[in-house]
Amino acid sequence: MKIAGYQMQPVVGDIEANLAKIEAAAETAASQGADLLIAPELALTGYGAADKFARLATPAQGPVTDRLSEIAESHGLAIVAGFAEQTHEAVFNSAFFTDGKGQTAVYRKCNLYGPYERQWFRQEDRRQVLVTLGGIRMGFLICYDVEFPENVRQLAKGGADLVVVPTALPKGWSGDFIAEHMIKVRAFENQVFVAYINHCGADDLFAYAGLSRIAAPDGKLLAEAAAAGEALIAAAIEPAAYAKSRAENTYLADLA
Amino acid sequence: MKIAGYQMQPVVGDIEANLAKIEAAAETAASQGADLLIAPELALTGYGAADKFARLATPAQGPVTDRLSEIAESHGLAIVAGFAEQTHEAVFNSAFFTDGKGQTAVYRKCNLYGPYERQWFRQEDRRQVLVTLGGIRMGFLICYDVEFPENVRQLAKGGADLVVVPTALPKGWSGDFIAEHMIKVRAFENQVFVAYINHCGADDLFAYAGLSRIAAPDGKLLAEAAAAGEALIAAAIEPAAYAKSRAENTYLADLA
Repeated sequence: MKIAGYQMQPVVGDIEANLAKIEAAAETAASQGADLLIAPELALTGYGAADKFARLATPAQGPVTDRLSEIAESHGLAIVAGFAEQTHEAVFNSAFFTDGKGQTAVYRKCNLYGPYERQWFRQEDRRQVLVTLGGIRMGFLICYDVEFPENVRQLAKGGADLVVVPTALPKGWSGDFIAEHMIKVRAFENQVFVAYINHCGADDLFAYAGLSRIAAPDGKLLAEAAAAGEALIAAAIEPAAYAKSRAENTYLADLA
Repeated sequence: MKIAGYQMQPVVGDIEANLAKIEAAAETAASQGADLLIAPELALTGYGAADKFARLATPAQGPVTDRLSEIAESHGLAIVAGFAEQTHEAVFNSAFFTDGKGQTAVYRKCNLYGPYERQWFRQEDRRQVLVTLGGIRMGFLICYDVEFPENVRQLAKGGADLVVVPTALPKGWSGDFIAEHMIKVRAFENQVFVAYINHCGADDLFAYAGLSRIAAPDGKLLAEAAAAGEALIAAAIEPAAYAKSRAENTYLADLA
């Protein structure tokens, strides 16, 4: 299976504009043979939308997610994109998955970061969301979630080959450290693929680290974006090619 | 508190020779103001001792560990060193801690790596061993143990400021990856110091990665050894200096 990640600078507050940007990326990704396109955390609203989240939030089943499914269907690839999810009780920081053929899933962020996110979103309890696409078992996390080894481990124990992580990682020492070191380690210590797809540029509130990347089970990068600028990165996800790495790094089998 | 790590090439099978090497390192470290000297995994026997471990194994309280305590006392610093521990039932891959003033502790490796270690040692159940030295709360792991995020997390939740890791990391892609990326990430994701002290050179069975290092809570290296050659590395352990990093990276507080 081939996956693509769209390092994106959303238009804050403009869902239509962001759907159009995602559709353009989907068209390019599909033309390059991708089976899945991943957009960042809160790609549909922008991350810095702050007091606009309440107005921008949409249900997991509704016209906005339907549009994502239509884009997926018309370009013949699956899509994951972050959105502000409205439920009866609260707004969640969520990711929507659609294969464009009727299979959908929603993952809600379980580790909100800092007072900004806690002001606008409700934190979900930790739970696994796994889907299968092209024979690959794929689990979801959002941004800060992946910084907790417990969350990735839970997905790996649940059978994930690939962990898909829309993110909004800020510029700075910690952001660069997470991108440069932690993502590879999460892949290696679980012998899974990790696709970590970030924002770039800045909005009124935050500047982003870019550095989107797809790491393999052996800790090597299969694809990476620069710190600045929109980019479409892609990699083949072939678990069978990493049998040697799994035989040498037997973490899951050796867990006490 | 100041700690020193001795990247060492033990003489396989010769405990007396290795005690002499550790004493020489202790003398140098003490002269440079160190409060603690860390020697690698199985520093007293060599890692490649194989069928000699049974003969070389010594009790946790006995003449060999007494010698470590005497060296500590005479040079005025604490010592951690790996040894093959003989009990009534089995041989363990253990680390001995002595402050040279009567406080001692023994940590037994809880994640043995591969058939070689499992042939010669019994695996201990995971358990925390923590001591306090110079106001610093310090926990122990050995080599492969630190590659499991669960083990470091358990020590951090138990209040460790510093995780001391005697190791015998082999040369090669995985070894280099663990040294270059994973050790920093273990420090960062728990906001603790990690001292990872390895072998160098080669014995009849294995070649070692060197790259001993002391990482700070913000993921930066405070000291590092080269891949080749014996070395004495040192760093000050000052948790109070990392308040900003802990405030920004609130992993322990945010654990669900």
